[in-house]
This record gives sequence, structure tokens and C-alpha cells, in this order.
Amino acid sequence: MDRRDIHVLAAGTVLPGPPVDNAELTRRFSMPPVWEEWIDTFVGTRRRHLATDLETGQVRWSLADMGEAAASRALQTAGLRAGDIDLMVLSTASPDLLMPATVNVVADRLGVDGVPTYQLQSGCCGALQALELARTMLSAGGRRTALVVGAESCAKHLDLTVDVAGLPASEQINGVLFGDGAGAVVLGTDPLPGTPVLRGVTQRLVGLGREPGQLVEWFGRADRHTDRQAVREDYKAIEESVPPMACEVLDELLDELDWKETDVDFLLPPQLGGRMTERIVAGLDLPGATEVSLVADIGNTGNAAPWFQLEQALSRMREGDRAVGIAVESSKWIKAGFALEVC
Amino acid sequence: MDRRDIHVLAAGTVLPGPPVDNAELTRRFSMPPVWEEWIDTFVGTRRRHLATDLETGQVRWSLADMGEAAASRALQTAGLRAGDIDLMVLSTASPDLLMPATVNVVADRLGVDGVPTYQLQSGCCGALQALELARTMLSAGGRRTALVVGAESCAKHLDLTVDVAGLPASEQINGVLFGDGAGAVVLGTDPLPGTPVLRGVTQRLVGLGREPGQLVEWFGRADRHTDRQAVREDYKAIEESVPPMACEVLDELLDELDWKETDVDFLLPPQLGGRMTERIVAGLDLPGATEVSLVADIGNTGNAAPWFQLEQALSRMREGDRAVGIAVESSKWIKAGFALEVC
Repeated sequence: MDRRDIHVLAAGTVLPGPPVDNAELTRRFSMPPVWEEWIDTFVGTRRRHLATDLETGQVRWSLADMGEAAASRALQTAGLRAGDIDLMVLSTASPDLLMPATVNVVADRLGVDGVPTYQLQSGCCGALQALELARTMLSAGGRRTALVVGAESCAKHLDLTVDVAGLPASEQINGVLFGDGAGAVVLGTDPLPGTPVLRGVTQRLVGLGREPGQLVEWFGRADRHTDRQAVREDYKAIEESVPPMACEVLDELLDELDWKETDVDFLLPPQLGGRMTERIVAGLDLPGATEVSLVADIGNTGNAAPWFQLEQALSRMREGDRAVGIAVESSKWIKAGFALEVC
Repeated sequence: MDRRDIHVLAAGTVLPGPPVDNAELTRRFSMPPVWEEWIDTFVGTRRRHLATDLETGQVRWSLADMGEAAASRALQTAGLRAGDIDLMVLSTASPDLLMPATVNVVADRLGVDGVPTYQLQSGCCGALQALELARTMLSAGGRRTALVVGAESCAKHLDLTVDVAGLPASEQINGVLFGDGAGAVVLGTDPLPGTPVLRGVTQRLVGLGREPGQLVEWFGRADRHTDRQAVREDYKAIEESVPPMACEVLDELLDELDWKETDVDFLLPPQLGGRMTERIVAGLDLPGATEVSLVADIGNTGNAAPWFQLEQALSRMREGDRAVGIAVESSKWIKAGFALEVC
């Protein structure tokens, strides 16, 4: 069956509030100064933006606020209006509410109406799942333009009353790894001058029978008195598994597209943390490719991360350039990737 | 572009625990006997099944437990194994966790691996969004079989320590309207004898600028001390809007398929509550169609409801029969429908 080419028309992103560096986090949580050094050295994430005001505890940005802002920027860059959108997909691990889905709140604020909307509940591979969904829907015909949004907020998990020093390191790290933000991408069946074609998207569940590498709980009224930890990671499993899984994604994408390693001009690697991303990039071993990573300066923004990277890549890609993006999810284990080419 | 026919090969469902009737709810929540009469008369839902044991408060079924059981039954009826599944989609408004997505836990338990998985966060239209997603992915080629699961659990919202008599009626009704359960459908590009073809699926966001008719919150550790109500409905808006929206879906489906009202042999109407569904069916005015509704006996099971109806319809549809299913979501306002025909 013929597939119509799908083009990446524009991207837009937004970060809430001012950057919060490790010194500020250390001060705010009354941690010893060595904590700052520890984050710099072992996590490698220098700063992040948070939807919550760390001084007052007030949540200044909802997920819908961030999604709307990023989507507006992407639409403006593409020279399109809400009425041009035929399909909308939002992916997140941290929706504002269970219902209505945040995608519909964002759509409504933008003025998008009368079209199918989807919200994917997912972690680090969610953005690429959303990309594949939108691409397939556009390829099926009858629709020209899709808006894809990825957004994340730690606000509901960020309990400012907690004694951080009393937490195990495995819990402390959640407060330094992640950052809030949103990104959006506009896909279309008609190219704009110089916009890349989406050559491929791959994503699939792997690791049958493996324990989850990350668990994030939500609580309802029935859990009011629970003291269960809401966010748990198995960092050892993540550190061991993500780098080789990223290599597998790269190999599979290159194989499928019949591209050589030297064909890749831009590499958008997984955005776990500054140090982890460095290790992954070293393993991918694409010396000819320019790395596009923002994790050290904005933290792991989950479903938004690939769109921050893509926004930068789009501004730098020229005719003939090829880019590969890779994401790995460790909640259950998912491998995902995408490939772009400016024709 | 050619679309391959997609066939509904089988459905499977599961209900947790024994039925809980209105007398038992009334007794358990120490409500006056008139409450039972009030539910019978004005809500029209006689019983439902709950994942939580009402006596002990123990959660006996997780969403993954129910999803796995329903999916296993659907696969068995279709004569397929986990290894035959090329794509899996789960829709719910009440996932077990935020991460990993419940779809991946269910996939893992079934033995589904190495394929794309999607989890849609949605309310009453989620099952039909999942159906459309799976249909489009199969139509795009390269995949033969999709497993679609819809499941719902009130367990995290069901605070058994609460004084129900002290709640406003708008909150009391949440305890009687909804039921827990899961349903699954297997779609395929190759028919089995007598299985219907999916003639159409439609779903889209409508009602630009309208306030949500239903809000369901989740809480994180930062909300530990909140006393915000987690589930809120605007019943007046729902009662006014859902019946005419259901009529619009029917008209649009019939128009698109060039079917007449007398062509519809089975009607699967929205499953809000016994009385509401009666009113909707009266408005749809399809006297020649057999209604398939389970809401009075299992409650509003959200994302599972269409698959309970479909399972019954599949067992009754014969060559030449046509069926129409309709769902309306009032969180933000979504209209959805699907149409089947046994060729």
C-alpha cells in the first residue's frame, strides 16, 4: 500500500518559570552542600524548570497551560491556525486530571474542534508513540495536518513538606532528574520549504517478563492515608539496559531505511540525565553526527523531551541532512526511534 | 487509498466479584431504605460489580487483572494466541498506575511482546477511540491482528470510610452509577466464518468552549492533605446534551454508510445509567433494531461498556445483520460511533 510522505512542518516548546539550579535545590531542601556536588558529578543535570514555585509551593503552570503554549508556538511557526488541525494527539505520564483528558482542554483553548483527539498515557517513549499514531492517521488519507503535543509536570509529585535528607538516595534522585515542560510538533501531508520528511518511526514493547524499571503511582480518595512512595526506579536496571537498547533502536532504524552510520547528520539521543545521555551517546558511536541534547539544562522532560530536541534540530537541518531520534522507556521496557530527512 | 476490510473476530469480558445490588449498597453505606428506592427509580441501575470487597475494603482485582482476563477470553474465542497479536491498545479512565501503562502489564502477562502498544486516557468514548486507532493501524498494512482492551475500576475513588449520608446528591450518585469490569475485542484483516466487518468508526471532540460535564482528579504526594472532591459531574448538562448528541452520531453514521434507519438490526446505545439509556434509546427511535444494553445490571463500565455490548451482539448477529454502537463522552464533549455488518 502506498504511504503518503508525512512532513514535519514545525515544532514549538515552552519551559515554565525560571531555571532552578542544583544550588537552589540544595538550599530549598536544606541539604548539605555536598548534595549539589553529587548531582553535578553523578547525575550531570545542571538545572531544570518547574511548574511549581519552590518558595510558595504554588503550581503556576498546569499541563494544559504548557501544552497550549507549546502548541501555539508550533502552529505559529508552521503558519497554521487551529482550524487547519485535522487531528490532535497528546502524550504524557502526568495528566492534569484523569478526565477530561488534557488533550481536550488544550484543543478547546486553541480552538481546535470537530476532530479526533487522542491522549496517550506513557513515559519516555510516549512522544514517539504519538508521532507514529499521527503519521499513520495522516497516511490513511482524508486528513492533512496533525498536532502532536508532549508535556510533563512533576507538580503533583513534588511534596515540599517532605524531609529530603531523610529519604533514600533512590527517592532523592527523583527530585533532581526530572524537569517540567511541553513541546509540540505539527505534521502535514503538504511540505513547507525545507521541512523534513518523516522517513520512519518505530516503537515496540520488549523485555517479556522483565520487572518494571520505573513505577509511578496515582492516588484517589481511597488512598488518602497511604504513605506509599509514589515514584520508584530501579536505577541499576536502567543504567544497564538503556544504552544497549538505544543501540538496538539505531541499528534497526538504519537497517530499515538502508542508511549507513555515516549518513546520520543529527543524533537526538534519549534524555535520561546528563551523565546517562553521555554514556548512551558514547555507545551509539556516531562520530559524524551532531548530538542534540538539552537534558543537562532542562532535566528529563519525559514526553516533551524529543520535541525540545526536534525544535533545535529543525533550525539546523539543511537540504540533504538526515536525523535520527531515539527514546527508551524503562517503566515496562519500550524501544522507539524516528528518522527525518530534508529532501 | 484502498482500505482493507477489518473484521471483528471475537470479544471477551470479565466482571469482578459478585453483583452488588442497591439494597447492599444502601446497607453498606448506612443509608436510609429510601435511598435504594431512589436509585431504582431515578438512576435505574439495579446492580454492578466492584473490584473492591465492600466488607473488607480489600482491592481484589487490579485493572491489569481484569484486562488480562477479558483479553484471554477474547483470544480464546478467536482461536488465537498472544504470539498472533501485532498491536495492542488499552483504553481506560482509571489506570492502575501512571507508569508503567497498564496496557504493557497486561501485554506482558499475556505473553504479547515485540509489538507496538498504546494506552488511551479517555472516558466513555475511549473504547471507540481505541477501535479507530487499531483499525487504522491494521489498514495501513504490515499487521494482521490487533487486541483492543477497555477496562475501568472505581477502586481508588471508593473511600469506604466516608459518611455517604453527609455528601451532596451529586457526589452520592458516583457510588451508584459506575461499575468495574473489562472487555476486549480482537480485530483482524482475515475474517473468521460469520464475523462482522467494521464498516465505520467515527469519533471527534465537539462543543468548543463548553465547560466539562465531568471532572475526575488524581492526587500525588503533594496533594496528600487536600480534601478536594475527586469526581464531579454536571448531571443537568449531561441529561440535556447526551440524548441529542447520540442522535447526531446515528445520523452521521447512517449518512456516511448510506444505510437507512430500517437497516439497523442491533443498536448498542450509550451506557450511562438505566434510565438515561432508556431516554437515549427512545430518542434514537429505531423500532426495528434490537437494543443491546447491560447498564442496568452492571452499571456504567466506561471504557469496558461497548465491549460488553459487542460480545452480546456478536453472539446474536447473523448473515446480513447490521449493528450500530454509539458512545458520548461528557468530560469534554466527544461523539463516537461504530458500525458492523456480517457479510
